[in-house]
Amino acid sequence: MTTPDFFQADHSAIEAALERALPSETTPPETIHRAMRYSVFAGGKRVRPILCLEAARMFNDNLEGAIRAGCALEFIHTYSLIHDDLPALDNDDLRRGKATNHKVFGEAMAILAGDGLLTLAFETLANAPIEPAQRVRVISEVGAAAGTIRGMVGGQVADVEAGGKAVDAATLEYIHRSKTAALIRGSIVAGAIAGGAADADVERLRRFGDLIGWAFQVVDDILDVEESSAALGKTAGKDQEQQKATYAAYYGLQKSRSIAADLETRALKELEPFGGRANRLKQLAQFLVARRS
Amino acid sequence: MTTPDFFQADHSAIEAALERALPSETTPPETIHRAMRYSVFAGGKRVRPILCLEAARMFNDNLEGAIRAGCALEFIHTYSLIHDDLPALDNDDLRRGKATNHKVFGEAMAILAGDGLLTLAFETLANAPIEPAQRVRVISEVGAAAGTIRGMVGGQVADVEAGGKAVDAATLEYIHRSKTAALIRGSIVAGAIAGGAADADVERLRRFGDLIGWAFQVVDDILDVEESSAALGKTAGKDQEQQKATYAAYYGLQKSRSIAADLETRALKELEPFGGRANRLKQLAQFLVARRS
Repeated sequence: MTTPDFFQADHSAIEAALERALPSETTPPETIHRAMRYSVFAGGKRVRPILCLEAARMFNDNLEGAIRAGCALEFIHTYSLIHDDLPALDNDDLRRGKATNHKVFGEAMAILAGDGLLTLAFETLANAPIEPAQRVRVISEVGAAAGTIRGMVGGQVADVEAGGKAVDAATLEYIHRSKTAALIRGSIVAGAIAGGAADADVERLRRFGDLIGWAFQVVDDILDVEESSAALGKTAGKDQEQQKATYAAYYGLQKSRSIAADLETRALKELEPFGGRANRLKQLAQFLVARRS
Repeated sequence: MTTPDFFQADHSAIEAALERALPSETTPPETIHRAMRYSVFAGGKRVRPILCLEAARMFNDNLEGAIRAGCALEFIHTYSLIHDDLPALDNDDLRRGKATNHKVFGEAMAILAGDGLLTLAFETLANAPIEPAQRVRVISEVGAAAGTIRGMVGGQVADVEAGGKAVDAATLEYIHRSKTAALIRGSIVAGAIAGGAADADVERLRRFGDLIGWAFQVVDDILDVEESSAALGKTAGKDQEQQKATYAAYYGLQKSRSIAADLETRALKELEPFGGRANRLKQLAQFLVARRS
């Protein structure tokens, strides 16, 4: 499985927009802006912004609003990694092949850099070139996706609480759909709304996003077992070491692979009514499940 | 100086709205919602929501939007206290007369509860009953006030970096206007916009909010020296112990009192063109400077 051919162009557009949306390293207080930029530019794949952008493109050629929303989603994703890596949480030293934020800038600055990125995300959305009525919907969707009720923070809480315990399948599903799928789904929904999609199309893409986001985390669990730290750019084998609730641990690798494949199939089915318009989202979905890092 | 007579009615309206805006303790994951509610309902004065509400009342009788925005501002204020109290930052055990969030729920949950409150703040704003065009302005203002560039997080960073060092008057001013004044100013500006104020009036209230918020922090510095932990509901004398950059330490108590009085006078001058309409904001300003806790 290779990267879709449009991936690089999208990636470059996002990088340029992130560069513009973040305060420069010389803006006071310099330390926090250096810390925020360090983690944002540590080499992320930009999965969420690209999904946002490509969801918008299905409905509209003017992509400025979706690109800006994509930056906000990447800020939220990045803040969550910085906070998750903290000693009080996953206590990880390596992320995307580099020292984690708190290892470089210290714990206090890492907490504040995360807070700064989360705040900047919503300020960026508030000023995005999207019609106000759609813009408030996007902000509400992103807030819910990143929040505590079946959103990213809620999933992280459930993940922390499940550590070292025997969990059931329903809890495992809750964790994965909240911790990871919610923000991926939110990225696609935000893009669709920014692009002016009709409500029925937004709901169809919401289902697609949930399924592909869920598959994404199942694949993450598998890769944590199968791949090396070098390939992943983060400490491999951490899940097992920390007795995390993962699909790999609960179902085994083979069954986990078939669950991911099944979720992918169900996700792609949601795209069928869109026909060729959804080709890029389809390619992205396939790439996200087949990836090796 | 007594509390203004309308204070209790506003306070009750805010308490009821906070109760509605926060997930219940039985909403999963229960732990984080308990942790969020613990700190929000730990007995805050609700200064920011009340300022927001009274700024809106100058322009409009429909206060629902401002009350909702006030809840969001209280969530942001509360998240900042939870994160500031963490061991990596101020390492404080006592807040509003109760154990701090991380002492009760642990460090991981305190970090996530702060993240959850900050996220909920913006989701609450996104769904507030304010016209979409004004709503996005409110979100943008609140984001900037809570952010890293001359906003709350930026001030906190400067505060952390100034600890134990000799700072100059300009740095001290930067810290106080960013760490504290920005969100108080943002609360007043948000209320004015939610109430439909004309741009010139918003700008006048922005200047009022900056000055009164700045005075508020100078008074905080004085009280940390003069009052007991019991009166403050937090550990008194911490500033000196942690060698914080404060007005009390830099200028001494007497000069700090005259600076606060001068800022109050300048703030009240900004209200003059509003005449009797600004009576409540005036009373609030006087109360905030004269308070003893």
